[in-house]
Amino acid sequence: MTHSAFQPSRRSDVAPFIAMDVLAEAARLEAEGRKIVHMEVGQPSAPAPQAALEAARQALEHGRLGYTEALGIAPLRRALSAHYRSTYGVDVPSGRIMATTGSSAGFNLAFLAAFDPGDRVVLTAPGYPAYRNILKALGLVPVEIEVGAETRWSLTPEHLDKAQADGPVRGVLVASPANPTGTMMTPDALDDLVRYCEDAGIWFISDEIYHGLDYSSGQKTALETSQNVIVINSFSKYYCMTGWRIGWMVLPEQLVRPTERIAQSLYISPPELSQIAATAALGAVQELEAVKAVYAANRDLLVSGLPKVGLDKLLPVDGAFYIYADISRFSSDSLAFARQMLQQAGVAATPGVDFDPVHGHDFLRFSFAGAHDDMKEALERLSGFLS
Amino acid sequence: MTHSAFQPSRRSDVAPFIAMDVLAEAARLEAEGRKIVHMEVGQPSAPAPQAALEAARQALEHGRLGYTEALGIAPLRRALSAHYRSTYGVDVPSGRIMATTGSSAGFNLAFLAAFDPGDRVVLTAPGYPAYRNILKALGLVPVEIEVGAETRWSLTPEHLDKAQADGPVRGVLVASPANPTGTMMTPDALDDLVRYCEDAGIWFISDEIYHGLDYSSGQKTALETSQNVIVINSFSKYYCMTGWRIGWMVLPEQLVRPTERIAQSLYISPPELSQIAATAALGAVQELEAVKAVYAANRDLLVSGLPKVGLDKLLPVDGAFYIYADISRFSSDSLAFARQMLQQAGVAATPGVDFDPVHGHDFLRFSFAGAHDDMKEALERLSGFLS
Repeated sequence: MTHSAFQPSRRSDVAPFIAMDVLAEAARLEAEGRKIVHMEVGQPSAPAPQAALEAARQALEHGRLGYTEALGIAPLRRALSAHYRSTYGVDVPSGRIMATTGSSAGFNLAFLAAFDPGDRVVLTAPGYPAYRNILKALGLVPVEIEVGAETRWSLTPEHLDKAQADGPVRGVLVASPANPTGTMMTPDALDDLVRYCEDAGIWFISDEIYHGLDYSSGQKTALETSQNVIVINSFSKYYCMTGWRIGWMVLPEQLVRPTERIAQSLYISPPELSQIAATAALGAVQELEAVKAVYAANRDLLVSGLPKVGLDKLLPVDGAFYIYADISRFSSDSLAFARQMLQQAGVAATPGVDFDPVHGHDFLRFSFAGAHDDMKEALERLSGFLS
Repeated sequence: MTHSAFQPSRRSDVAPFIAMDVLAEAARLEAEGRKIVHMEVGQPSAPAPQAALEAARQALEHGRLGYTEALGIAPLRRALSAHYRSTYGVDVPSGRIMATTGSSAGFNLAFLAAFDPGDRVVLTAPGYPAYRNILKALGLVPVEIEVGAETRWSLTPEHLDKAQADGPVRGVLVASPANPTGTMMTPDALDDLVRYCEDAGIWFISDEIYHGLDYSSGQKTALETSQNVIVINSFSKYYCMTGWRIGWMVLPEQLVRPTERIAQSLYISPPELSQIAATAALGAVQELEAVKAVYAANRDLLVSGLPKVGLDKLLPVDGAFYIYADISRFSSDSLAFARQMLQQAGVAATPGVDFDPVHGHDFLRFSFAGAHDDMKEALERLSGFLS
């Protein structure tokens, strides 16, 4: 037999995460001596809070870091339970909380524990590209629903009625605040959607990774409405701990043991040092609110500044740290436009096609999680580039 | 609709990793004040090497830890390439080496990149239980072949002929040194098996996680025989870095980009601090060889001591840090026996049913990765318990 047998699987033919490819190209330009303003990756420029760093330092002094329980260390799970009480006023026993290796592991585990091959799961377009890539790799069927301004870029019960008319829906995945749009569902709209799923026997997966980063309305967890939701969260965004790869999930009671069993084989446990540091990070609210204040200033600067340089069709920015800007008056090829902007202006942003294969060619996502001076610099550079 | 809709998926019905459950029970007894000798989890009692800890400390001082390239940081990949040259005398370009979040991520990514649902993958029984659990969760078909003393507990071309007669085989997964048996394939036997797969167009996945831990014969990587193999390795065992969740893979050229795309969505990147520490660990050979000398002393103690207390049917222990002992003269229910031994003698070991659902009821796996005094203590306790 010839070596033509040694080919990749069909299911490995998923789309690349273009934001990561833009990051690599930006790094290449920086290696050539160029100064690049990074607005492509959703990553805080601030380090982990001091208390987290100090906890990590102390753990390193103690010597061995080992496997932990697959569900995570008890102090972290207890601290997260307290977090739900203090932040949302809801009681979530620590036994239903599981530490995960980033929200990435949360999605993978949730999909494996809740869905079997062929199950249909509803998502928004635009949306985080890893959702559909993980679903496809696991033999699931992403049902992407185009959302727009008329529903504040969110799913509604009417969308789900339509999706169900085409075939049974087993799950719905919602992020609020959303990536890439930065929009949030109103508390009532979220409540309606969770109730719809509860009544229809559809798993509701609530991606709450941008919680804590809201600039106007208050945030609400899906746990306030139902105990049958799966909530996924992370220390990467509000807590500034991307590189630590640590997040968490809240599971319905009946999913805890099945998910634990899968995690024992697929992950063994999340990194112990990251679990220790994350436990400390939960108490660092003062430091983290100062970081959030920078995002809020960045948001104000860009929401008023981008229209002046020509990007005047912006979505509402309720939360997270993204501006999803319509670039259609300049280009209908966001990938080429992002490359040109990186080369000529030294500003890295992510083309909308990462988030929405259909309409994303008209959009760029700008992350404003960087330093305030970088945002000023970006506006100046864009002013020259777009005029 | 009633809430009976909210049930776990069928594919989440995988077996638990019993070693982890034994660990939890041992922890419960320790909380009651009992002193337990831990021989249940394959985890070094030594901490990560000093150079790794120092590199981690310095990285913490620098502040932010962020996402890295999905394939891992360049210095780690270059250091691993040099490792293949110095250890095995083979040239592996760093472009084919990928850092992973432990070998756990390596298996998951390799299975996704190489296999499609329904593909049959050959494994040994006994074997590491996560193999079959991950395969099943991903819709693949584990074909477990019972191996025994007559083939030194290894697969042979004859085994594969038989498996192929039952249907097409897409992959073969081999560990040498093996878990739970600690046996190694001879260089010629490994060579024969890799060539068989190369000729038959079957993916050969070589789990080399226990490399570095060999006590008699020399070790050989499958990369010496073929470029179409997938090699999985980790910093958890020889490098004493379990809790850091960091490993690596060597991929055939044509699998690199497909695997990178899947990893971007499923993991984003391995923990940055662990990547930095692992790079330093590769240079800490002197310290790690001292740790290995303890294992060698433990091995000698147990191989001569266990028969005296009644466990006289042991497998050859060529490598790793496991003794797979036949307990059939005491019990034909290794799960109950392990529980009783933990309760009465305070020695934790893993029942063979974790590794082999068919014959594992006759075996216990003892890990000798602990301190030498603990091994002496274990022998004393077992002497009392078994007599």
